[in-house]
Amino acid sequence: MVITLVGAGNLATCLGYALLTAGHTVRQVWSRTTASAETLGKLLQCPWTTDLQALSADTDLFVVSVKDSALHEVAAQLPRHALVVHTAGSMPLDTLTQPRRGVFYPMQTFSKTHLVDFRQIPIFVEAAAPDDEATLTDLAQSVSTQVRPLSSERRKFLHVAAVFACNMTNHCYQLAAEVLAEQDIPFEAMLPLIDETANKVHTLSPHTAQTGPAVRWDKNVMERHLQMLDEEKREIYRMMSESIHKRQ
Amino acid sequence: MVITLVGAGNLATCLGYALLTAGHTVRQVWSRTTASAETLGKLLQCPWTTDLQALSADTDLFVVSVKDSALHEVAAQLPRHALVVHTAGSMPLDTLTQPRRGVFYPMQTFSKTHLVDFRQIPIFVEAAAPDDEATLTDLAQSVSTQVRPLSSERRKFLHVAAVFACNMTNHCYQLAAEVLAEQDIPFEAMLPLIDETANKVHTLSPHTAQTGPAVRWDKNVMERHLQMLDEEKREIYRMMSESIHKRQ
Repeated sequence: MVITLVGAGNLATCLGYALLTAGHTVRQVWSRTTASAETLGKLLQCPWTTDLQALSADTDLFVVSVKDSALHEVAAQLPRHALVVHTAGSMPLDTLTQPRRGVFYPMQTFSKTHLVDFRQIPIFVEAAAPDDEATLTDLAQSVSTQVRPLSSERRKFLHVAAVFACNMTNHCYQLAAEVLAEQDIPFEAMLPLIDETANKVHTLSPHTAQTGPAVRWDKNVMERHLQMLDEEKREIYRMMSESIHKRQ
Repeated sequence: MVITLVGAGNLATCLGYALLTAGHTVRQVWSRTTASAETLGKLLQCPWTTDLQALSADTDLFVVSVKDSALHEVAAQLPRHALVVHTAGSMPLDTLTQPRRGVFYPMQTFSKTHLVDFRQIPIFVEAAAPDDEATLTDLAQSVSTQVRPLSSERRKFLHVAAVFACNMTNHCYQLAAEVLAEQDIPFEAMLPLIDETANKVHTLSPHTAQTGPAVRWDKNVMERHLQMLDEEKREIYRMMSESIHKRQ
């Protein structure tokens, strides 16, 4: 397919690279800022612009990957009769106004500096028209083996679950990193534990996999931990420990 | 070495199995409850007891792996002149009263039903006497390639960091699982995201790796997420999001 990327952030960068690798053509790249547009245009070896009106209508698909709060406004400026999709987990299909609208949501955490293997990434598709849903499914299957249709209503729950499983999880790593940095212990010491924590939930439910002082409600340990922490970490520690304990 | 295991929980089970596999002899197993003692005795094919006084002094090492709050009392009943170690990250060396006391702390999350490969697990050792520290280092190196000495004072910070990186992280998985269960979406859908979140911090710092609505402070998305959650998850979501955002 011939694809135009509207947005040049983390997701657009990783997706654009995967589409190119799968043999598709990236027609043009747009970004609000020159720096981002140029960087992605160069990576994908295609023309780039910061002017939405400069985007050619001669393309099979517009993929809009911009900040959710800008999505409606940016997409509304694209050609009325084009196939236009967004990639936002939490935004409904109807954020777009084109009759041929769709959603192409790869559920993964993307960073520009860390290109990922798309084949194992679940991609959830939705479209206003059945033909377009078939087109999006084909496109998704050209980069991933994990493609499923999903309605806007259900996708928004998937997205909030992803925030817990990814962003909140990564923040737990961050809090651990800060505790270690204060003691000059390298963060790398945590990696086997982090890997095994992720690995365990492939075969055990998170509830069965849980261990640690909050499960046992080992008050002495928890009290000593609280004393070592600053106020913010103490509050998070207390709230999470109570939340763990009440599920035992 | 000839080793006596005092305690038969998750850690004792996984460590006992690793020691046996590395060619050591497990002399006896003790647990407070008959069921646990018998199960581990059978797994390790060695005698088991629930009577601390029935433990033979004819052993090279007692490894005490009991709940932290019981550690002092249980260990105090072991032979005065034996080499006695505990495996608790947050407990100081001096919780033990024997002159030949030590700590043997494998930093990992252990479940009886999920035996792990010990070779990559960091083991932190400490002992009151240099000779005993050398003995514990040798023992640790027989099961793991990641062995380091660490003082009680520094180990307690490592342990609280491990609680964030493991138990709190697993609880984020649990919260995601609950959101998905309500929508009949299988938890397996999260696994590629969970794996990549863990994978990213091998090459990026948690701060650089962070993504999602709290980083961008995308209020619309966060507000919609909050409306989908029950009160407990809403409080955790809010607190974690603020904590993520203030670090940007």
